[in-house]
This record gives sequence, C-alpha cells and structure tokens, in this order.
Amino acid sequence: MRLIARRRVRTIRLGDEARSREDVLALEEPLEVRVNGARFSVTMRTPGDDFDLVAGFLVSEGVVVSREDLPDMRTVSGIGIDGEPTFNIVDATVTGRGVVHAAERARTLYTTSACGVCGLASIDAVRTASAYPILPVGLTVQEAVIAALPDRLRAAQSLFDATGGVHAAGLFDADGEPLVVREDVGRHNAVDKVVGHALTEGLLPLSHTVLQVSGRASFELVQKARMAGIPVLAAVSAPSSLAAELAEDAGITLVGFSRGRSFTVYTHPERIRA
Amino acid sequence: MRLIARRRVRTIRLGDEARSREDVLALEEPLEVRVNGARFSVTMRTPGDDFDLVAGFLVSEGVVVSREDLPDMRTVSGIGIDGEPTFNIVDATVTGRGVVHAAERARTLYTTSACGVCGLASIDAVRTASAYPILPVGLTVQEAVIAALPDRLRAAQSLFDATGGVHAAGLFDADGEPLVVREDVGRHNAVDKVVGHALTEGLLPLSHTVLQVSGRASFELVQKARMAGIPVLAAVSAPSSLAAELAEDAGITLVGFSRGRSFTVYTHPERIRA
Repeated sequence: MRLIARRRVRTIRLGDEARSREDVLALEEPLEVRVNGARFSVTMRTPGDDFDLVAGFLVSEGVVVSREDLPDMRTVSGIGIDGEPTFNIVDATVTGRGVVHAAERARTLYTTSACGVCGLASIDAVRTASAYPILPVGLTVQEAVIAALPDRLRAAQSLFDATGGVHAAGLFDADGEPLVVREDVGRHNAVDKVVGHALTEGLLPLSHTVLQVSGRASFELVQKARMAGIPVLAAVSAPSSLAAELAEDAGITLVGFSRGRSFTVYTHPERIRA
Repeated sequence: MRLIARRRVRTIRLGDEARSREDVLALEEPLEVRVNGARFSVTMRTPGDDFDLVAGFLVSEGVVVSREDLPDMRTVSGIGIDGEPTFNIVDATVTGRGVVHAAERARTLYTTSACGVCGLASIDAVRTASAYPILPVGLTVQEAVIAALPDRLRAAQSLFDATGGVHAAGLFDADGEPLVVREDVGRHNAVDKVVGHALTEGLLPLSHTVLQVSGRASFELVQKARMAGIPVLAAVSAPSSLAAELAEDAGITLVGFSRGRSFTVYTHPERIRA
C-alpha cells in the first residue's frame, strides 16, 4: 500500500540559493464508504488500514456496535478522474439494528479528513447516544504513564517521520503499553482507524484503555471516545470548550497540553493517580 | 461576543503537587447555516464573525460568487439543549444562479470545524469549478515577504494567545501587509472567515493576495483558495499529496513548512522572487 507521494520541490532559505530536491508528501485520497451497497459517505483520508477506518467510522456513527454487526467489508474498484483504476471504495456489509440506522443516516451524511459530526440532522442531534456508557472511575492511570504517552505515540509514527504532515492516534493500556497506533492526514480518521482495529479484534467497549491523540481535542474526538467506551482521552494540544463539556457529561477524563513532564486535566481527574 | 470559556482544571507536573487553577478554552459551538430559510449545513465553529464565516463558506461551496449574490444575512435565535436561548443559526438570503445550486447542495451537505469537501455527491465531484480562474504568474511575491508571514499571522492572533488552541488564516498583500486575519478552532473555518470578509468588502477575486494559514495545507484549503481566486497559499506545516496535485492543476503557488527563515515551494515557484 502506497502511503506517500514523491514530488520535486524548491527549498528556499533566506540569503541562500534556492535548492531543488525531491520531497515526500503524505498521501491523501477520497474514500467512498458504502453500507450494504448504498453510498454512505465520502471522506478524505490517507490510504492504508481502510477496513479499520470504515469499521471505526461506523462505530462513531452508531451504525455498528460489535464485530457481529459487521460480518464483511470489501474493496470495490473504480475508475478515477485520470482514467486509472482506483481502490477508493469500501462496501461494508452491516447486519442487525444498524441497517435501518445506516439508511437513515446515508441521506444526510458526508465527511472529510477532519470531520466527525457530519451525521447531524440538526444542532439538537449533536450528542449521539452510545451503546457503551462510561462507568464511574473504573480504570485509573498513573500520572507518569499519561505523561509518557505522547513520546510513545510519536515513536510509533513512521509516516510522520517521512512527511512531517500526519496525525496519529494510539490506544494504550493502563501501564502505557500500546495496543494499536494509526496515522492519517485527518485527526479523526486516525481515531476511527484505532477504534476500527479494536472492533475487529473484539475489544469493544474499550473501557480498559487510554486514547492518546497527536493534536487538539475537539468535540468530535470526545464523541468518538464516548461511542467506543474509552474512559480517558489525552491530547498533545488544547481542547475546545465543547470537548470539555461533552467529556464532563459523558464521564470521560480529558487531558490536554500533554508535553512530556506535565499535562492539564480538564475533566474527571479521579482516574489519574500520583 | 464571547470567544472563550473558563474552566477549573488541574495541572500536573511530574514530581510536583497537582495544582488547581482556572483555564481559558477556545469556544466551539455548532452553527446551522440556512439559505433562503432552508437548512444548508451544520458546522462546528468558534463564535464570532459568523457572517464572514457563512459568506466565505458559500463562496467555497460555489453558491455565492460576488456580494450581489448575498444581499442579506441574519441571525435566527433558537433554544439550546439546556433550554437557554442560542444564536447559532444564520439565515443567508441568496439571489441569482446560486439559489438553484444551493437547493441541490442542501440535500447532501454537512460540515464540521475541519470539513471542506462535505458537499461531495461522489468522488468524481471533488474538483469544483471556480468562477475565478487563477491567471498565470500575475502576482509575484518576494521570498522575504513569504518568510515573514507566519510571524505576522501569529502576531495578530489574540485568541491563540489566550487559549493556545485555535487556527488562524490571514490575507496579505504582495508587500506582506495584512488585509484581514481570522481565528477559529477549525482550520477551514478560519479561511472561510477571511474569504467571507473579503467578499462583503467587494474584494473578490483575491488575485492580488497571499493566504497564510497556521496549520497544514489540506486539499480543502487549496480548494477554498481556488474558489476565491487566491494565487498563493502558504502553510506553516506540510501539505498533503492531493493539496499539491490540486494546486498544480489550479495554477496556485503552494508553500509549506514556512518557518521564519525558510520554506518549501511545492507548486508554481514562478511567483516567488529572490
């Protein structure tokens, strides 16, 4: 699977001659998601782990709750704008109560590489109910484990090293051991990929895990954590106000500005122990 | 207009006692966009400059080309989930050929704080035609001007200073003088806000300007530059492969990794002069 594109570029440094060189860019291509043959969404994503991405996206959207709801996924080939064959369509076979739900959502649902609440029928529908309520306390995690996660996530990012241009998400256990790490040009795609991987491994709800993300903590990422039953979400950068509000409501521990030796806990600090 | 939310947080530094303090978060709330009274999209955004945001979004979506197409916008009050009044709906009055186009798009269009291609009916429709073709060469900009833009953008970011958690976009002239700078939790919203401001000032097409953004250069941002006729797009971080491809096609000069004294030119370097 090709994850990068090479391109001739010109590097300019003030006071020096401009240099021409080959650069490596993170690949970004559209993916069409179909549910039982009907178009469900189009997302911009980094190819690779497409089945993980689709599975996690369907969890986030409330269409799939366990792997029994998703017996099959397959890649559909098509013809791109340039006349070349593409493999940018995944058709997911969904069973159970998700079938009706998917049909309702397909009428309004579109998404992109950084789009998590695209299923909204109205502002009132922003808060989607989860099949996996977050239990009070449950998992607890040591401060030192939380503080170490950004470095552990970064260490697992092969695509970032090549391109400097992708986000990552990782699921870690309470000891800080990685369960799965995924990368994508879109923050929320990286989260969908790790959740989708966990779904296909039969690991949902993820009540024993911490989700570490490379960027900001937006509303959509908290929503995704909630749908997968993840009790702790840690971000390298700032959360938005709505992210903190939803985390508070949902019982999720939200960590921001996690920078090696310090971090800020925005909600439910009772899961973090010294 | 309230742009921030205050919240009691706990700061943890390894080896020290945890401290409780008040933190400031960037506000993120849903905005429903209506066109001639009919629901068109829902986006997650930082409140403030909502009319700029809606105007620019309608330019990006090809619904509005000049300010004559958008004679009026008004805020509609509603009732939030918590029973409190909200001002998170904007109804835009659109005239001309955009009316039919808007009605077609409304059936499929949803968006979020980081969502720019949500109007896709299919993968083939990714490349929206612009009313403002980018002319060969035209504007040229000195290397030193390009190199200075990230600092100038950052200097104008009041919300970032408070929260550390928002993106920015700025339009600059060929001498590096700012025309307008806007902030938002979503990258593409910040771009829509500056384009919308320019529309209402009667400045489209923006063929004399450089668009500087705080984060990555995604496909969607190149698309927005194209719809507004902006010939130079500069980003602080990496572009994706599709961003570079579209910039090449559209005749846009795409700059990435712009870091004070150096930057990389991905496409159309002929507009950058030493």
